[in-house]
Amino acid sequence: MRHDLEGLKSEQACAILKELGIDAWLVWVRETSQMADPVLKLILGNDLVWQSALLYTKKGQKTAIVGNFDADAVENTGIFDHVIPYTKGIREDLLSQLDGLAPKSIAINYSKTDVSADGMSVGMHILLKELLEGTTYQTALISAEELVGRLRGRKIPEEIDRIQKAVDITESIFDSCKPFVRVGMSEQEVHRFFHDMMLQHGVTCAWQEDHNPAVDAGPDKKFGHSGPTDNKIKSGHLLHFDFGVRWTGYCSDIQRMFFFGSKSDVPEEITTAFNTVRDAIQKASTFIKHGRKGHEVDEVARTYVTDHGYEEYQHALGHQLGRLAHDGGTLLGPLWERYGESPKGVVEAGNVFTLELYVTTENYGQVSLEEDIVVTKSGCTFLSRPQMDLVCIE
Amino acid sequence: MRHDLEGLKSEQACAILKELGIDAWLVWVRETSQMADPVLKLILGNDLVWQSALLYTKKGQKTAIVGNFDADAVENTGIFDHVIPYTKGIREDLLSQLDGLAPKSIAINYSKTDVSADGMSVGMHILLKELLEGTTYQTALISAEELVGRLRGRKIPEEIDRIQKAVDITESIFDSCKPFVRVGMSEQEVHRFFHDMMLQHGVTCAWQEDHNPAVDAGPDKKFGHSGPTDNKIKSGHLLHFDFGVRWTGYCSDIQRMFFFGSKSDVPEEITTAFNTVRDAIQKASTFIKHGRKGHEVDEVARTYVTDHGYEEYQHALGHQLGRLAHDGGTLLGPLWERYGESPKGVVEAGNVFTLELYVTTENYGQVSLEEDIVVTKSGCTFLSRPQMDLVCIE
Repeated sequence: MRHDLEGLKSEQACAILKELGIDAWLVWVRETSQMADPVLKLILGNDLVWQSALLYTKKGQKTAIVGNFDADAVENTGIFDHVIPYTKGIREDLLSQLDGLAPKSIAINYSKTDVSADGMSVGMHILLKELLEGTTYQTALISAEELVGRLRGRKIPEEIDRIQKAVDITESIFDSCKPFVRVGMSEQEVHRFFHDMMLQHGVTCAWQEDHNPAVDAGPDKKFGHSGPTDNKIKSGHLLHFDFGVRWTGYCSDIQRMFFFGSKSDVPEEITTAFNTVRDAIQKASTFIKHGRKGHEVDEVARTYVTDHGYEEYQHALGHQLGRLAHDGGTLLGPLWERYGESPKGVVEAGNVFTLELYVTTENYGQVSLEEDIVVTKSGCTFLSRPQMDLVCIE
Repeated sequence: MRHDLEGLKSEQACAILKELGIDAWLVWVRETSQMADPVLKLILGNDLVWQSALLYTKKGQKTAIVGNFDADAVENTGIFDHVIPYTKGIREDLLSQLDGLAPKSIAINYSKTDVSADGMSVGMHILLKELLEGTTYQTALISAEELVGRLRGRKIPEEIDRIQKAVDITESIFDSCKPFVRVGMSEQEVHRFFHDMMLQHGVTCAWQEDHNPAVDAGPDKKFGHSGPTDNKIKSGHLLHFDFGVRWTGYCSDIQRMFFFGSKSDVPEEITTAFNTVRDAIQKASTFIKHGRKGHEVDEVARTYVTDHGYEEYQHALGHQLGRLAHDGGTLLGPLWERYGESPKGVVEAGNVFTLELYVTTENYGQVSLEEDIVVTKSGCTFLSRPQMDLVCIE
């Protein structure tokens, strides 16, 4: 396994520590095959079995203290200046490394808002506090939320390339699906086709495979996180997809709408709904840029939808995309309790977001689209080719 | 997806609550595609996107409070008496459900010792304490460590059947490997063969694939969690494997030793080491039974090894096996700092353990074996066919 990207992200972490004026970052984990701190994939790429401390400083030092059986694999990544193996207990090595670095602030991975910055378990937190008892480091612990948010959110060019490739493969699978789907087919048959295509393209699911792609045929299917059923495609009905793949660790997440019938058969009710969704996404895309707040961007699309007489969508306009389909950090969402602080965050150049929303029609169910964009200093660039018209399958 | 097994484990959880005299168990999670509490696979099998509260009581009530988009999928599992969807925030529904159940003790998933019972993140813990502020539930929170340990450890027959099948497939792959491996082959080539076989058998890796199987050729390769290299098999040398597969969610974990040469070529140094390892495992297997403490079982094998003039192995004799290759709970390990309380736990009938250890020879590197057993009231039953002789490849 090569670790170039993980190495670059580790350097970026040190640079962000400096920017934030935080002395050190401690990633404190164990048995990561059971439950892994989400940052590990970003900065290491290996599992760790015993209690492990990965230490990064604003001066650029990178130290790993790991169990003796993990040491070789961590050493082989080439990411760390020092790999310190231990056998019986980590306490002594951890304290002596901290004494060498003498950090006045130590960021650790917990966050009320950002699940991808909330990788420390309660048990590991208790253990850490016990290990540090009686030292000055005990009171030096702070949340790494801002650090992890910036590190995860600010994609380096190699990361954007990988997401672009995942998006390209996703669109190519949508294209090959057009001659395949037809009236009478079940959601489950369509779902299987997508999985065959993923195998052919050597990609995996960006989220749980039983609802990836979500395939929703007709007006009565509730959108959401439930899987495809034996519900069949009918003439004059809509077909909705929510589909994302993972390529070399990075994800796409795209929604598309098909209609079964000719262009001239499309009821006005559907056309109006489709155009509203499409244009709300475009509105948001012309508004978003470096420095906007998450909820401001959501507000643009949400207002557009309600101004056109539709109920507001019951989710956020967009989440970040990267190693995970929901990549954490700033959310393009409304200021609702369940989103906590995340919609108050600031959008940064290099952030990759989805733009997604639905409206509900009276007779044809929901109409929903989702595009992927990367934010720039002055605006954004689409990674997906936005769906501008309904795909009509005759 | 069928959820029969998850349903049975959920019932078992309620029964264990009753046994322990705990009123309720709260599994409190969010965005589990990023970092999932390890118990979710055991009792649910689905991902959950928004903040979710799964509530189980000693009276057998099972309630899920989940985001509106997750509700259908959770409902479809058929596990819960009530599925309560919410849109904007979970607080109100969670408090009203707790008010209905009025628990005086609420177990939540944190543990210093057992990573598989330590599924709550620090951020979620802070959020929970905030949600419960000013209620009597705030002081009702206790660790679910004992509950989760028993639930995970006490395999029901369906779980043992699945592990047995994973073990059988593992042994079948070892068998098909015998005519394949030969002098001159690299560890990496052998590793690829195992992966081809896994595909053929429709199983996945029980742990990270780059070191599963671990393949260690010759005296200079350090055993551990590092992957196979271009190190080549030589005549007169040993080849070591550590290999486990996952079949319908359940794992095997087996180590085997091959020698390259005829039986009569095996140096006495190797024979003595092999027999010591084999017999230490057998010693432990005749000692283990329901009611033994973890460290007592480890002690039997460890003493056998040191009595035979070898240094003691630098790991635990055995870990539990199930949904995970390291399934948590009681450990058959020494009383070392890094193992915390886990070796003090009591072995129970229905527990599935590995028995594994190595000794180091002067000229041929390490000799290491690992078997899988299920504990009974009066002893144990081997799930693997114990390796009684070196496999000699001429």
